[in-house]
Amino acid sequence: MHTKRLVLCGLGKVGQSFLKLVAERAEAINRQYGLKIEVACVVDIGGAALASEGALPLDGFLDFVGTGGRPEKFLGYGQPGLSGVAAIERGDFDVLIETTPTNLTDGGSAFQFISAAIHKGMDVVSANKGPFVLYFEQLKKMAAESGSRLFISAATGAALPTLDVGKFSTVGAEITCIEGVLNGTTNFILTKMGMDKISYADALKEAQAMGIAETDPTLDVEGYDTRNKLVLIVNTLFNGSYGVCDVPVKGIAGIAYEDIARGAEAGKVLKLIATAEVKEGSIKLSVGPKYIERNHPLAAINYAEKGITYTTDTMGQITVMGGKSSPMGAAAALLKDVIHTHLFAK
Amino acid sequence: MHTKRLVLCGLGKVGQSFLKLVAERAEAINRQYGLKIEVACVVDIGGAALASEGALPLDGFLDFVGTGGRPEKFLGYGQPGLSGVAAIERGDFDVLIETTPTNLTDGGSAFQFISAAIHKGMDVVSANKGPFVLYFEQLKKMAAESGSRLFISAATGAALPTLDVGKFSTVGAEITCIEGVLNGTTNFILTKMGMDKISYADALKEAQAMGIAETDPTLDVEGYDTRNKLVLIVNTLFNGSYGVCDVPVKGIAGIAYEDIARGAEAGKVLKLIATAEVKEGSIKLSVGPKYIERNHPLAAINYAEKGITYTTDTMGQITVMGGKSSPMGAAAALLKDVIHTHLFAK
Repeated sequence: MHTKRLVLCGLGKVGQSFLKLVAERAEAINRQYGLKIEVACVVDIGGAALASEGALPLDGFLDFVGTGGRPEKFLGYGQPGLSGVAAIERGDFDVLIETTPTNLTDGGSAFQFISAAIHKGMDVVSANKGPFVLYFEQLKKMAAESGSRLFISAATGAALPTLDVGKFSTVGAEITCIEGVLNGTTNFILTKMGMDKISYADALKEAQAMGIAETDPTLDVEGYDTRNKLVLIVNTLFNGSYGVCDVPVKGIAGIAYEDIARGAEAGKVLKLIATAEVKEGSIKLSVGPKYIERNHPLAAINYAEKGITYTTDTMGQITVMGGKSSPMGAAAALLKDVIHTHLFAK
Repeated sequence: MHTKRLVLCGLGKVGQSFLKLVAERAEAINRQYGLKIEVACVVDIGGAALASEGALPLDGFLDFVGTGGRPEKFLGYGQPGLSGVAAIERGDFDVLIETTPTNLTDGGSAFQFISAAIHKGMDVVSANKGPFVLYFEQLKKMAAESGSRLFISAATGAALPTLDVGKFSTVGAEITCIEGVLNGTTNFILTKMGMDKISYADALKEAQAMGIAETDPTLDVEGYDTRNKLVLIVNTLFNGSYGVCDVPVKGIAGIAYEDIARGAEAGKVLKLIATAEVKEGSIKLSVGPKYIERNHPLAAINYAEKGITYTTDTMGQITVMGGKSSPMGAAAALLKDVIHTHLFAK
């Protein structure tokens, strides 16, 4: 039996869902995979709850947090003011779980947490895109030097295994093209416009009312979220060092219902597509609305669903779609990656 | 760098495609994964070509076989009459690649080859369903005792990663239901009937003319191939010991065009669906034609394509579809599994 001691940085919805999942499933995972998961430290803004040995009493901790308690006040374990970096440097941990809010300007403190974990040779499992979108090459290099590994399933489509298919299910084949519907909000808006024959503005309003789009929908509708995921996927799969500047992006804000109707008449479906074309060692990246054939596997992905198609030389086209986009979906992807740190040889 | 020495049993289309792939990609795989693949022995009906040390000279061997040469006659390596079992017992190998023709009556000699490999602690990578459909529990038990592992991607959908998604991409989630369109021939016939408004007999004839259906289509159209794949998938994912008798099967031979049309009018699509419903620890298996909703992810799988949908508790529904069904697709799945023997911790 192996034990993995975890530090969780970030106690928002995703972080809390992750802890609930671990509390509920640690025993079953231990039975099935011979892996004992111990959450040894939880860090949030005001400090940390830290178990110097063994694990935090998760059920008690979750009750405490559920009634408004803060980690740094958790009796017997609370450490007011203890930062993520200090906690990581002090303890003996195997895996960092990063779920602090994404910061796309400078990566935020997550970049510090991840760097500290890498320096200690810990594996990193992150739902946070920021540091990887901004500093992928640097983090990858640091990780290679210290022997730590980076797992970012949760940052590239939550429960949809965008990366798994490209990383494991197609090994030995050459990927010649990747196409993805990677953002649920924009796919919802485009689907809604087509189905209900309504304008972009009306579909957006509906998405906002349903909590699918944010009040400021820029990150989604301008294609930036799609672009960010594309950069993470391509860098992971091709050991690349692409940045957001390498991806020409067009959003969906300028699309009229008539554009969708015109496509439908010609047997085509309008989708916001992330594309990576691999040609003679170089990769051409782009994000933008695109008419795809009605029988293209991505054409069947409707409303807030996502999907990705890998075109390969020996395996043909493989498409994976679905996967919950909720905090629980992201938490489930984090838990999967934790188990992967155990299943995959170092 | 790790080296994996391979024995290939069976030099049909899939076996030859596999050797071509290894010849073409061994160097790239070595660079990317630190894995050196050496094909040390190839066994077919008349004997074997065996390299007691290092690898067979693959390019020369493929040229030789391509012009009608038999392994046992290959200069410097040929061993007339050497059987698979004798070769496996004699040599120092890491992985058995099983591609002999499927025998669903008693498993054929493949069962002996696989048993011999397991006894030596080798990993087994098989495109051959027979021994696993018939003796899964026995093989699993033997493998657990000797520390060998069983990889059957190629037997459960060729290049379509039916198993990967259930085995790796959903770890930590609970699978509550599996639904699959697992047989390309029957899906082609049903799609063709619906699209061209033709009878079952006419669609079958067309499939036969195109080489998609065999002269005796029983295994496909009666649902037996679908059932066999379902048994392999469920036994692998749930550590089960289900046999073909546990699966009520209905084929598609009795279906009329009118059945499909009637479904379409009601917004439904008729597919041959393999189902595994997980309820309170027991699994209910079945194979048969089923009306699914038009927006069900499997409804979009047309013609000779295949796909599988996993319904989970924390990750929602995840569907993977596509993947080449050709001998090259199966060979690519074998190569993937060989790389997996290296990527996954023992």
